[in-house]
Amino acid sequence: MARIVMKFGGTSVADIDRIHNVARHVKRETDAGHEVAVVVSAMSGKTNELVGWAQAMPRATGAESPFFDAREYDAIVASGEQVTSGLLAIALQSMGVDARSWQGWQIPIRTDNAHGAARIEDIDGSEIVRRMGTGQVAVVAGFQGIGPDNRIATLGRGGSDTSAVAVAAAVKADRCDIYTDVDGVYTTDPRIEPKARRLPKISFEEMLEMASLGAKVLQVRSVELAMVHKVRTFVRSSFEDPDAPGMGDFDNPPGTLICDEDEIVEQQVVTGIAYAKDEAQISLRRVADRPGVSAGIFGPLAEANINVDMIVQNISEDGSRTDMTFTVPSGDLEKAVSVLEKVRETIGFDAIQSEAGLVKVSVIGIGMRSHAGVAAIAFKALAEKGINIRAITTSEIKISILIDGPYAELAVRTLHSVYGLDKQ
Amino acid sequence: MARIVMKFGGTSVADIDRIHNVARHVKRETDAGHEVAVVVSAMSGKTNELVGWAQAMPRATGAESPFFDAREYDAIVASGEQVTSGLLAIALQSMGVDARSWQGWQIPIRTDNAHGAARIEDIDGSEIVRRMGTGQVAVVAGFQGIGPDNRIATLGRGGSDTSAVAVAAAVKADRCDIYTDVDGVYTTDPRIEPKARRLPKISFEEMLEMASLGAKVLQVRSVELAMVHKVRTFVRSSFEDPDAPGMGDFDNPPGTLICDEDEIVEQQVVTGIAYAKDEAQISLRRVADRPGVSAGIFGPLAEANINVDMIVQNISEDGSRTDMTFTVPSGDLEKAVSVLEKVRETIGFDAIQSEAGLVKVSVIGIGMRSHAGVAAIAFKALAEKGINIRAITTSEIKISILIDGPYAELAVRTLHSVYGLDKQ
Repeated sequence: MARIVMKFGGTSVADIDRIHNVARHVKRETDAGHEVAVVVSAMSGKTNELVGWAQAMPRATGAESPFFDAREYDAIVASGEQVTSGLLAIALQSMGVDARSWQGWQIPIRTDNAHGAARIEDIDGSEIVRRMGTGQVAVVAGFQGIGPDNRIATLGRGGSDTSAVAVAAAVKADRCDIYTDVDGVYTTDPRIEPKARRLPKISFEEMLEMASLGAKVLQVRSVELAMVHKVRTFVRSSFEDPDAPGMGDFDNPPGTLICDEDEIVEQQVVTGIAYAKDEAQISLRRVADRPGVSAGIFGPLAEANINVDMIVQNISEDGSRTDMTFTVPSGDLEKAVSVLEKVRETIGFDAIQSEAGLVKVSVIGIGMRSHAGVAAIAFKALAEKGINIRAITTSEIKISILIDGPYAELAVRTLHSVYGLDKQ
Repeated sequence: MARIVMKFGGTSVADIDRIHNVARHVKRETDAGHEVAVVVSAMSGKTNELVGWAQAMPRATGAESPFFDAREYDAIVASGEQVTSGLLAIALQSMGVDARSWQGWQIPIRTDNAHGAARIEDIDGSEIVRRMGTGQVAVVAGFQGIGPDNRIATLGRGGSDTSAVAVAAAVKADRCDIYTDVDGVYTTDPRIEPKARRLPKISFEEMLEMASLGAKVLQVRSVELAMVHKVRTFVRSSFEDPDAPGMGDFDNPPGTLICDEDEIVEQQVVTGIAYAKDEAQISLRRVADRPGVSAGIFGPLAEANINVDMIVQNISEDGSRTDMTFTVPSGDLEKAVSVLEKVRETIGFDAIQSEAGLVKVSVIGIGMRSHAGVAAIAFKALAEKGINIRAITTSEIKISILIDGPYAELAVRTLHSVYGLDKQ
């Protein structure tokens, strides 16, 4: 007997029939004797509808400012998960499974006061654990908690993953199963490389790089939280038949386990290839090379809420001037250039060059730490395909390479193959 | 300066534009210097959608029983008011009015444990009153509170009227303004009698009779509560332009005041004519006339949840047998007859006769207490029109007459005229 937290996202609870399907997944686990808490998102589309209303309201009044009170936004938007939690509890009860819904304020899930993007500070899991002992399933409304002001606080989009991991940590669950519309984490995007394989296991650190680099399986924050609290997190499909062979195999179900690297016996050098499209590159030519110049460039960009990613700095020949290259999301390029033009005098540079529509391809693997030459293999492979490398950044477990947009798929497939990821 | 509770129902908050209109009504009152709390329903249609899902869920699982946990139903359905309260708070803020939403559990509005049809037991109005003093508008989610089990409890359909009156009592409001889709209480239904006039005032007792007899302006429970706590309640239109002349006249706005009879200086003998369609009559012929026979008849009907209304008993010629006639809603007729057939032996009667599609017309007026002959006027007027009277019941302030369905409109117009209600 184990204790499991099961999380179901918006597409998995999109309508009455799909909620019934979720209830079947839950019943399979309770029938097997496991203690279960479930975390649910809003029915897909509902959150967008509610957010749309909250945003439309100031405009409808003719207000000059489009801003709204984040505390009211939270009260409005959190209602979506409230509905799903009640419906799933009813579904489970109808199938003979004891269940009750829990809103964030009832447990309580205590958050900080950052309404709209709150962080969970504490969860009192005692009552849920006590009831699990009697066989009752807790159906927890995801994405929400209660702030120090005694008002509903939401965790930001995708926050239900974070809720699930936090609840799993609070009730000391053996595993947190994230049911989603994909059946696991792959070596790369299968839509680009059909030979991509599902990983049976991936370490927290690697998953963090995969998640933040554009593999949209899990929220980055939820992986961070899982890593900190060592919550074994399992990504699996909610769309498979709940009673298909193997689905109820607790020790070896279909999906990908995100876990501590110690648990991964046969460590691969490279685990996966991720990519992020719509990157833009900005180069500042002949920047005065003196202390404080980086702050002069990146301070104003941060203030304008522009997320700067890869940064490469080359010393110029005479050593007094430097070229500074970095990337921003393509959508922010125009704003970034205009911000930089304004501080041109203060910083002192000759020219701004920019290009949008680029792609960042990343090679990820915890084994890189102990293997040399991993990067060289990538550079050679891309060169052989005639793919020009615009910039490179590296970390302990990842190499990121900026290339021209049209080469994205070719680069992903080339790297996937050169590291042997397409072989069992 | 006064303290006002303003209540807006589902059609008044049906969409973003209508919520803006509601905010304009509220701003008019705060601009005039009044302290304001607002109680809102769910956007019209939303409650039905949520109820539909809750009811569909057990069926979708293939459960034999269509029943669902009323506590989960409450969590689901109460989300509708939660959304409206947040949206109205945003609208007010956008118009420069300080406002915040309050869910039932935040105030708290404490109820009993009868989920789905809970009664309000206590409201702590202190924090709302304190904030009113600083100019903040409280936007309260209607229809809901929190039960002794710390779970959301709803008050049953139309419960937002009750919420509003209860909040008004808790904050000691000078008046509770119920904004609705009609502009007041009329002497009778204007769709039947175009000469119907809007009453400037009506007593709690009369309104109670009007409400329970089918004038669908206010929930019966809210009027009872207003009478007990002496909450002056004002029925007015939410569809008029918030800035139309007279709308902001606190002492004499357009609408109908429901108040203590002491406040009504010129008491009319008859205040209004109400009617209720789809009544059915059941007559039991030659019932054994002995102690306990009424309990034998009406006990089983009550157990079957059938609402018995008018009851008339005639002694038969020899005194040993009696005829018993009463009415039930037409929709319950078949069930009622089947219940009575089952207890036929125990009760002892010769025959059941029944007829559906009847109408109950009622003459209401607090002045009847001190005026004789009011009933005789009605009987004579109906007789002159050839309308057959099937049954009569009377109370201190009302006469109810059961007639055949097709005569409903004629009877209403006849009585409206004979008591001079169509004259100013």
